[in-house]
Amino acid sequence: MTTTARYAFDADTASTRLGEHQYGLELSQRWRALGGHVNGGYLIAACLQALHQEIPHPDLLAASAHYLRPAMPGPARIHTDIARIGRRTATGQARLTRDDREILRVLATFTDLATADGPTVLRDDPPVLPPPERCFDPMAVLRPPEASIADQVEFRMPQIPGFWHGTPTGASFDEFWMRFTDGRPADPIALALLVDAAAPVVLDLGVVPASATVELTVHIRNRPAPGWLACRVATRFLIDGFHEEDFEIWDSMGTLVAQSRQLSVIP
Amino acid sequence: MTTTARYAFDADTASTRLGEHQYGLELSQRWRALGGHVNGGYLIAACLQALHQEIPHPDLLAASAHYLRPAMPGPARIHTDIARIGRRTATGQARLTRDDREILRVLATFTDLATADGPTVLRDDPPVLPPPERCFDPMAVLRPPEASIADQVEFRMPQIPGFWHGTPTGASFDEFWMRFTDGRPADPIALALLVDAAAPVVLDLGVVPASATVELTVHIRNRPAPGWLACRVATRFLIDGFHEEDFEIWDSMGTLVAQSRQLSVIP
Repeated sequence: MTTTARYAFDADTASTRLGEHQYGLELSQRWRALGGHVNGGYLIAACLQALHQEIPHPDLLAASAHYLRPAMPGPARIHTDIARIGRRTATGQARLTRDDREILRVLATFTDLATADGPTVLRDDPPVLPPPERCFDPMAVLRPPEASIADQVEFRMPQIPGFWHGTPTGASFDEFWMRFTDGRPADPIALALLVDAAAPVVLDLGVVPASATVELTVHIRNRPAPGWLACRVATRFLIDGFHEEDFEIWDSMGTLVAQSRQLSVIP
Repeated sequence: MTTTARYAFDADTASTRLGEHQYGLELSQRWRALGGHVNGGYLIAACLQALHQEIPHPDLLAASAHYLRPAMPGPARIHTDIARIGRRTATGQARLTRDDREILRVLATFTDLATADGPTVLRDDPPVLPPPERCFDPMAVLRPPEASIADQVEFRMPQIPGFWHGTPTGASFDEFWMRFTDGRPADPIALALLVDAAAPVVLDLGVVPASATVELTVHIRNRPAPGWLACRVATRFLIDGFHEEDFEIWDSMGTLVAQSRQLSVIP
């Protein structure tokens, strides 16, 4: 039913309604992360697309996901539950299962960002980056064989992080460009995928072979304009194997569009 | 049933089991925030205490709450649901209702922090503060009449923020000491209250009369040692009335114990 979707993101996050608050979908091979499991941001986005069908507000505002198990590609179900449909916001929940085992649970609140009309005070600036055409494509250095998501999302970086070359630098902060490879413009639900689409910056600390997300929350701060997205990512505290990752996305007009934090653990 | 609890936090967050996955409690008058509603951190803590009764892991690791409506003190119910009990972590959900209307929904993951044994790399330091006895008590300047939480949690500040004097400074960053007034030591679930116990730093931007939490996530990074807690709070982006608030708590040994972010909106 979704084979006619123009973009991979839309085709692969769409689900079929099976009954009241129940949806079915095929977790796609196209969004696999390092290690071969399905990327966590893709799983959130699929849950949010299903939930959005039952909520009248146009824009994702905040989504919080707790990850229970990793998932491989294949058939999955999404179960939704509406907590409240209000005038200004609406909140619901989605559970994604695979073979009747729960993979992740998401709480999400939606709103209409176009009607937000309070004051604005900005205390930080967008990343200062050379234009994308003067940056490097890290996939030209190394394309992780299992990570098919590297075909769906592309990056341009002022310099390639050390871990891409096998020589971690100890930095745990980075800024770079990102977009969907097939030209799909970002929207709030797509941002929930994109905040989890880059290789974790903690890899440059050189002490971590990989990490698994425990919890990820994303806040949407504006509807994104089309074009390259400027990203800022930082991990400040790796403690006994647990680390946060803070991720900001700014659009091509220099507007903050998403802020996320995830707590991850070395498996 | 909890009137014998030694500390206000324990007495007021305890609930009575009414049936399978159902609990009853009285939302206390003692944790009212500016405006007279029950403090959001207190509501999370009450949910977590109920959920913790059904989970074997000793420590809260991550909790994400979406707020649906404000609540006044009085009788409430908590409904729990266990998503997964694993070896390393366990995840569940709690819904708090008042008069059958849902007030907030929380997802939470628990673990045993004492068994965490991965690498540690710290890229930031605790707040540098004068000792509490050389700091100021903001409640000596102004005690907000409705905010009974000001009797339960006390603060010591190197300087009193401008908004306490009615003259906002435009700063949106602050560092100060905090603890329970009655001497209760903090623990992971208590930290979920404390990250939401201070007056929002956005008040010093002078453009906001008050703000209501949409979503709050807290990550517990270590079990806290007893004593005063050093706090660091920042709001970097107030956009069309929505703002994040990042809150860190460091214990008396200089160890990071909690990181939270909330998204709030001017009502």
